[in-house]
Amino acid sequence: MVPHTTETVIAIDAMGGDHAPAHVIEGAFQALHTATRRFRVLLVGRREALEPELGRVAPERALDWEIVDAPQVIEMGEPPNEALKSKKDSSIAVGLRLVRDSKAGAFVSAGNTGAVLSASTLILGRLPGVGRPTIGTLFPTAGAPCLVLDAGASVDCRPRHLFEFGAMGAAYMTTVRGLARPRIGLLNVGEEEGKGNEATQEAYRLFRASPLEFVGNVEGRDILGGTVDVVVCDGFVGNIILKFGESVPAFLKARFKEFARQSLRGRLIGLVARSALRSVLRDLDYQHHGGVPLLGVNGISIIGHGGSTPLAFMNMIFRAEELVRKELPAVIQQQLQSAHA
Amino acid sequence: MVPHTTETVIAIDAMGGDHAPAHVIEGAFQALHTATRRFRVLLVGRREALEPELGRVAPERALDWEIVDAPQVIEMGEPPNEALKSKKDSSIAVGLRLVRDSKAGAFVSAGNTGAVLSASTLILGRLPGVGRPTIGTLFPTAGAPCLVLDAGASVDCRPRHLFEFGAMGAAYMTTVRGLARPRIGLLNVGEEEGKGNEATQEAYRLFRASPLEFVGNVEGRDILGGTVDVVVCDGFVGNIILKFGESVPAFLKARFKEFARQSLRGRLIGLVARSALRSVLRDLDYQHHGGVPLLGVNGISIIGHGGSTPLAFMNMIFRAEELVRKELPAVIQQQLQSAHA
Repeated sequence: MVPHTTETVIAIDAMGGDHAPAHVIEGAFQALHTATRRFRVLLVGRREALEPELGRVAPERALDWEIVDAPQVIEMGEPPNEALKSKKDSSIAVGLRLVRDSKAGAFVSAGNTGAVLSASTLILGRLPGVGRPTIGTLFPTAGAPCLVLDAGASVDCRPRHLFEFGAMGAAYMTTVRGLARPRIGLLNVGEEEGKGNEATQEAYRLFRASPLEFVGNVEGRDILGGTVDVVVCDGFVGNIILKFGESVPAFLKARFKEFARQSLRGRLIGLVARSALRSVLRDLDYQHHGGVPLLGVNGISIIGHGGSTPLAFMNMIFRAEELVRKELPAVIQQQLQSAHA
Repeated sequence: MVPHTTETVIAIDAMGGDHAPAHVIEGAFQALHTATRRFRVLLVGRREALEPELGRVAPERALDWEIVDAPQVIEMGEPPNEALKSKKDSSIAVGLRLVRDSKAGAFVSAGNTGAVLSASTLILGRLPGVGRPTIGTLFPTAGAPCLVLDAGASVDCRPRHLFEFGAMGAAYMTTVRGLARPRIGLLNVGEEEGKGNEATQEAYRLFRASPLEFVGNVEGRDILGGTVDVVVCDGFVGNIILKFGESVPAFLKARFKEFARQSLRGRLIGLVARSALRSVLRDLDYQHHGGVPLLGVNGISIIGHGGSTPLAFMNMIFRAEELVRKELPAVIQQQLQSAHA
């Protein structure tokens, strides 16, 4: 351990994810090795669970990290709100308090998503003017990725919430992709203005009346079609689309296998095509996106997929560092103020 | 033309679809050639538009068909309800009246979906006990296809409607796939009972209390995953998933092209892989499913995709004949009665 060399400190939930703490620690050290002294990493978790794992990664060089002991663990399957009440010193709560108390610039977790969502809102608080914090997910397109939000934080949404999701999503895309005016689409069953349910109809009017770059209603095909930068929907629809999309690679792999089984020619083609398929399907894979932040809370909290690999954890840490540097919460707050104006 | 040789008569909207009447007529004659004298086809549309096209298919053998003149045409983009009011003699209205008046056993159309949906309910009427007729869409899985409904007929649904969709979808899967007890899943954001919005929570209770084979909540990944035979959702979610799914092949093709562009090796692999990709993506293509019927109306009305090919029209006619033979409306009515018991 070396003294604190930079101002950027990232707290990571060392107990969160299907392969925690091994994958978390591996990813954290990959990040530290790759970008020495650009940031400090706080490994938040049960010290006695972390220390044996740390022996395995045995950092050769002096890297900037520290264990922050959190004696409790919220398991993946636990009901979030009860777990947060009964486990005040979980790695999730301890990590988020580090952000609240300005001891870390960001918190990263691949743990129980519901618990991270709730705890982030409870501990960090909401930004002024935010009704519901939201989490998005990045979908690949033929060009630049498309941010779909809400991806599951808010199942029942009012029009005002949908509008805020759009404004916050646009602020995020401006921050990480440098887009001056991200194009926002409202996910609907048709492009005409009167389409959809009551919530989407009213949200349409709110977007139209705002200074945001609103292109109107978009359909399911526009997500992968890349016609907009931000797609707004409630968390019920967003979560279903997210999980449907995640299931496409496994479906295609099974179909390719079936194709290859049918003939010798098929087997040969299958062998050759495998690498192309792998490369193409990788884009549909969440692990390469490196997690997305919860938008609308007063701090930076990045939520990763439970199945995150060391590579995914490394990418999440890099994303966290970038968002700290670019002061994401301040950008969002500013965007919300001008969107409401 | 030969005299009416069988009792099964299929009326087809010759003016419906992006390539009408050419593709409709081609598909109809392919069906008649393939299954001579199994059914009679009524080509419903503007006689002067159909006759020149009929010259091109020039049936060699005596086939069992007839033109039923319908002087008006509802265009694809017209607002359905206004079009139905102002065009009482559209091919859609005339064709459905043939079914209502027992002059045809089924109506098949790839025309304006909204107009076919509304006209089917208005002209054929609902089956007793049906709050909302519904339309489903078949998704491929590694095994047997999965019926997702509602696919867009009802955007805002009450729990009772979702329950009826499940019962009617199960009756359909029993009819066409011979499944004794189709497994029904309720599309939701998690598998636990308390998940989702108010409508899904109450629908869950209705399914649980029924004699249907209800497996509980399912997630977006279960559609392609093939864990159930019928997936129930409202038409807002269903339509978005349907269109998202339809956009996957184009996305993958673009990605494969990009992969092939990157290197000589990539180009070679791309050439070889193309046939495998085509075969695999064909399953994701709506055209091979041959349309799905509107469930819950007092008659058989099959709605196809606007882009239907001659092959798709042929398949729709075969599906129509099968559903007439198996008396789909009676099966649905029986299923609804026992589901409510």
